[in-house]
Amino acid sequence: MTDTTRIALFGTGRIGHVHAMSVAALEGVELSWVCDPFADGAERTAATYGGRPTTDQAEVFAADDVDAVIIASPTPTHVDLIASAIGAGLPALCEKPIDLDIARVDELRAVAAASVVPVVLGFNRRFDRHFARMHDRVAAGDIGRLEHLVITSKDPAEPPAAYLRSSGGIFRDMTIHDLDMARYFIPEIVEVSARGANTFSADAKEIGDFDSAVVTLRGSRDELVTIMNSRHSAYGYDQRIEAFGAEGLLQVGNQTDTGVRHWGAASVESLDPYQTFFLERYAEAYRLEVVEFLKAVRGEPSRSPGFEDGRAALLLADAADRSARTGAAIEVDLS
Amino acid sequence: MTDTTRIALFGTGRIGHVHAMSVAALEGVELSWVCDPFADGAERTAATYGGRPTTDQAEVFAADDVDAVIIASPTPTHVDLIASAIGAGLPALCEKPIDLDIARVDELRAVAAASVVPVVLGFNRRFDRHFARMHDRVAAGDIGRLEHLVITSKDPAEPPAAYLRSSGGIFRDMTIHDLDMARYFIPEIVEVSARGANTFSADAKEIGDFDSAVVTLRGSRDELVTIMNSRHSAYGYDQRIEAFGAEGLLQVGNQTDTGVRHWGAASVESLDPYQTFFLERYAEAYRLEVVEFLKAVRGEPSRSPGFEDGRAALLLADAADRSARTGAAIEVDLS
Amino acid sequence: MTDTTRIALFGTGRIGHVHAMSVAALEGVELSWVCDPFADGAERTAATYGGRPTTDQAEVFAADDVDAVIIASPTPTHVDLIASAIGAGLPALCEKPIDLDIARVDELRAVAAASVVPVVLGFNRRFDRHFARMHDRVAAGDIGRLEHLVITSKDPAEPPAAYLRSSGGIFRDMTIHDLDMARYFIPEIVEVSARGANTFSADAKEIGDFDSAVVTLRGSRDELVTIMNSRHSAYGYDQRIEAFGAEGLLQVGNQTDTGVRHWGAASVESLDPYQTFFLERYAEAYRLEVVEFLKAVRGEPSRSPGFEDGRAALLLADAADRSARTGAAIEVDLS
Amino acid sequence: MTDTTRIALFGTGRIGHVHAMSVAALEGVELSWVCDPFADGAERTAATYGGRPTTDQAEVFAADDVDAVIIASPTPTHVDLIASAIGAGLPALCEKPIDLDIARVDELRAVAAASVVPVVLGFNRRFDRHFARMHDRVAAGDIGRLEHLVITSKDPAEPPAAYLRSSGGIFRDMTIHDLDMARYFIPEIVEVSARGANTFSADAKEIGDFDSAVVTLRGSRDELVTIMNSRHSAYGYDQRIEAFGAEGLLQVGNQTDTGVRHWGAASVESLDPYQTFFLERYAEAYRLEVVEFLKAVRGEPSRSPGFEDGRAALLLADAADRSARTGAAIEVDLS
Repeated sequence: MTDTTRIALFGTGRIGHVHAMSVAALEGVELSWVCDPFADGAERTAATYGGRPTTDQAEVFAADDVDAVIIASPTPTHVDLIASAIGAGLPALCEKPIDLDIARVDELRAVAAASVVPVVLGFNRRFDRHFARMHDRVAAGDIGRLEHLVITSKDPAEPPAAYLRSSGGIFRDMTIHDLDMARYFIPEIVEVSARGANTFSADAKEIGDFDSAVVTLRGSRDELVTIMNSRHSAYGYDQRIEAFGAEGLLQVGNQTDTGVRHWGAASVESLDPYQTFFLERYAEAYRLEVVEFLKAVRGEPSRSPGFEDGRAALLLADAADRSARTGAAIEVDLS
Repeated sequence: MTDTTRIALFGTGRIGHVHAMSVAALEGVELSWVCDPFADGAERTAATYGGRPTTDQAEVFAADDVDAVIIASPTPTHVDLIASAIGAGLPALCEKPIDLDIARVDELRAVAAASVVPVVLGFNRRFDRHFARMHDRVAAGDIGRLEHLVITSKDPAEPPAAYLRSSGGIFRDMTIHDLDMARYFIPEIVEVSARGANTFSADAKEIGDFDSAVVTLRGSRDELVTIMNSRHSAYGYDQRIEAFGAEGLLQVGNQTDTGVRHWGAASVESLDPYQTFFLERYAEAYRLEVVEFLKAVRGEPSRSPGFEDGRAALLLADAADRSARTGAAIEVDLS
Repeated sequence: MTDTTRIALFGTGRIGHVHAMSVAALEGVELSWVCDPFADGAERTAATYGGRPTTDQAEVFAADDVDAVIIASPTPTHVDLIASAIGAGLPALCEKPIDLDIARVDELRAVAAASVVPVVLGFNRRFDRHFARMHDRVAAGDIGRLEHLVITSKDPAEPPAAYLRSSGGIFRDMTIHDLDMARYFIPEIVEVSARGANTFSADAKEIGDFDSAVVTLRGSRDELVTIMNSRHSAYGYDQRIEAFGAEGLLQVGNQTDTGVRHWGAASVESLDPYQTFFLERYAEAYRLEVVEFLKAVRGEPSRSPGFEDGRAALLLADAADRSARTGAAIEVDLS
Repeated sequence: MTDTTRIALFGTGRIGHVHAMSVAALEGVELSWVCDPFADGAERTAATYGGRPTTDQAEVFAADDVDAVIIASPTPTHVDLIASAIGAGLPALCEKPIDLDIARVDELRAVAAASVVPVVLGFNRRFDRHFARMHDRVAAGDIGRLEHLVITSKDPAEPPAAYLRSSGGIFRDMTIHDLDMARYFIPEIVEVSARGANTFSADAKEIGDFDSAVVTLRGSRDELVTIMNSRHSAYGYDQRIEAFGAEGLLQVGNQTDTGVRHWGAASVESLDPYQTFFLERYAEAYRLEVVEFLKAVRGEPSRSPGFEDGRAALLLADAADRSARTGAAIEVDLS
């Protein structure tokens, strides 16, 4: 009857807000429901971007004006919501991670595999136009066979202690993005080694987590991947990728709001510090993430990563955590 | 009754199309009329972006559903359309130049000055966020007193001979943008010197025009401005500004679609060539040009340049042309 | 009898010192005389780098252990010393300018032209390896036909008022280097336009000189050259060249002592300020200047500019001065 | 009687040649002996740079005109020559590594520790002015506490199979430089993890060596170090260091012969490929290596790394090799 794709949104935190904004700005799609156990959040988001607010997720799945769901609620709710979406025959875009517990993910795995409706994961960085262009150039053979991928990923500042405690640790919370990025270039990872360090954060140390980490991955064709993480960065959000191949090198450095460079008595060629954090750095990528999801919803070819990608990233994060704690390289089988 | 600002668009060429797209994408504004002597153009644009198509401009000015006009028709029509808009009490955004003949501009000047409705000029580069940021840093004193502004502006390729013939010459057609940019930083220009050259274009030479030019301006506080133009550039659209002050230097270089750099056997640190031309390079600026115009329409503070800025740019272009032909520095009085 | 080239040095100021050091460090060449009316300077330099000190230039030209002379004494002595060197059949390397008075230069011209011994000029920048490489790439056709050369040249700080007074003005003292650099790329210059400005220096203004200048040159094939000068630069010695051709662009930017870049909370990608001044920036070029002079002495092919290049630079500086004072473009004939 | 330091050189291969050249060019030092079992090499080097040629090392140690020795002969001869030098009371500069067998190094260790004459190691990169400046800025606290050091080090092309076979493997032959560089910044390393890969070289694979490697080190204060190696690099010798600290980041990238950048139709901002290999890239560093050794010879403060640094690098290389083969992180004790 209508060509408009009607979206139910779960979760109205930072990312939920970003997705609501994307949906509202796109043609041919609209928010029909906004669900959050905090009525306030649901109502505020619905008032701004459209849709009926509710605190009851059952109401959403029972409604007849939902064509797809976006899951931006806290991690522990993801598995149930994906299961419900699959049950209701609704395509789902779920923010990473699927869950912090691989066992729960694996319970859902068979269901997801059997489902005909797409379940896609919100690994936003795959949609960044700089990284996507690098990916496509690697795929096109611009640097010959890929031999070594280097990912630098540092957050501007450590999250609050409360967040840290429920985060699942640096590998499942932060590195997981980089693990997916590694798989964007080299899907078949067969080995994980990791070292963690406590260089500055008393909070992380107290809960047995690391504030810094280095992960080495090995691909099935003996490609190497190096991931370097820190929970803080004095110069802002640090997001770089380098792809080294048999015939050359590609790099994507950090992005700045403007290209104004400054020369002065104290220093020369200076740029303003980098874009504050992921909402700024990946603003366009979040929008494209929804665009690609909508393609999947409509059955068109889509660049969206799927359930298996979400599972693989968690599996690698688990392995990295184990490696960092035991000092041993861990063989992994993502199949 | 409605809060929506209704826009009548004149001209459906490249720039008209860009403005129609901007209007369609913005909240609180819509196209109500699309006027072009070519019915086809008017109809196609109206079909895509809204508004009633017409070939008759009188019909537009007689309509009661127009709150403001955007003039993107050919240069010779600008003066009449601005006059009609002022007569009808409608704010106008007019693409540069107002006219190629300063006498016609001056006839309109008193009317424009007496008018209470805003007439703003489409000098799109003022809205580029890189140049705007540089401007604001200069204004904030980041480099002390501005002493020398250097503008490099080269088109990717020469326009067709037919266009050249009606362009008014390189200074009125191309340099005029840079002259306005100079005035964005240093409004009071008191002297113009220019040299033109015929380095490659047989077409330009044949009609007595130049394909390359250098203009030196002097500000009222003895600031210097250097403008360097060429009608072609092998590496794409070249748009750079450098501001030298008593305490430092600011630079804005060219922008690339992505930040992917390449290292190979033949060369290193290479970027893909620059954004093709002005529609790509200044896409965001064109959008902001309309945003700022709408602020002016609503009586809010706006960064839009006005009629006097349009007149000043033409006056400087005339002086540059004269200087290039006589070899003499020309004193100008923009007041 | 000996293969060693014996050099007499005139002048033991900054540049004299640099040349003495170069001679001392090179194989197959030695200082045999060091002449300076200030006995102290002559003795100190001779003690450090070798040679017999004297205050009497006649003694040097009468000696039988001199194969060539280096003239690094004050400008007013250059013409006489070159004439004496030619008279004695001794090759001469003379620092720029030959003289501040073109009439005196022209008196010497016929003698220099008739002489079989080489007279070469100390335009050190031609020997900078960055500019030399750019020159060779342009000559090799890497950017097609050269259409526009852009030279930025700013000193870190204004010289003392006493120096300014005897300097011959910004064009003869400072721009002259850039005028020679222009001729390194485009030997046949046919027109000079210049504008000067007083943006900061009370001293320059008081004596009727400029502290900033822009010069536009035209080559015989309608190539354009832009030279931009300032007597101060907050970020250090600023020496850049850009060559724009029909098929591309080449740039040489400023050089830093080390390539260490810094990222911090206030700014990112910053470098330390540039090399202090010409003695640091052109240290290697000064050495190569002597190396190339020695080739000329030995009758080997040499990159050294000659007497005619020194005269041409002064002629262009005179024209620039006249243009800046009259506002008129000046045609020049360097032949 | 003489102030000149007389040097005996062992080995006249590539590095021996470089050291001979440095000695010949420096004031206050000369070659007195050149020793190589290949009489030809000894004679040629002596003819060019001075000194008496010999094939008999005993003759050198028996001579009374030797003040210090430089050992640039093949690795298996290092331990004996160092021992002889210590026995003769002669300061020694020995190229890395001391030996491929830590047992042999440890036999010499007590002797070296007890000796009053300096034994210094030729880790040339410590003398590179870019890395030295970065080191000094880190030491000065410019980036706060150092948390993560990242070293990229790639050779332009794989050495011949014969060389590979006697090289001791990638960690002892190539990574060893980077391990010393790591210790230049973070002397106390307590843990080594490494992964090797076979991405392109059939030769390396055949002999059980790797062609690519990643090493993670941990310092005693939980600092992390990442080293990334490859035996080939399509864009030339790749030598970069990045130091990440609590308050900022410092980077040293690759160096180019000249700063000429090129813009063309196919790509923009391109530089010529990097300096071919270590002899070019570290030419100045090799010279400073000898200068610092001479300071040590004269009992002056010197930046030269010593015997313990040579031993530590080998110990770390051994650990890296073991880690790469077992998959386990290896604790090390360098004391």
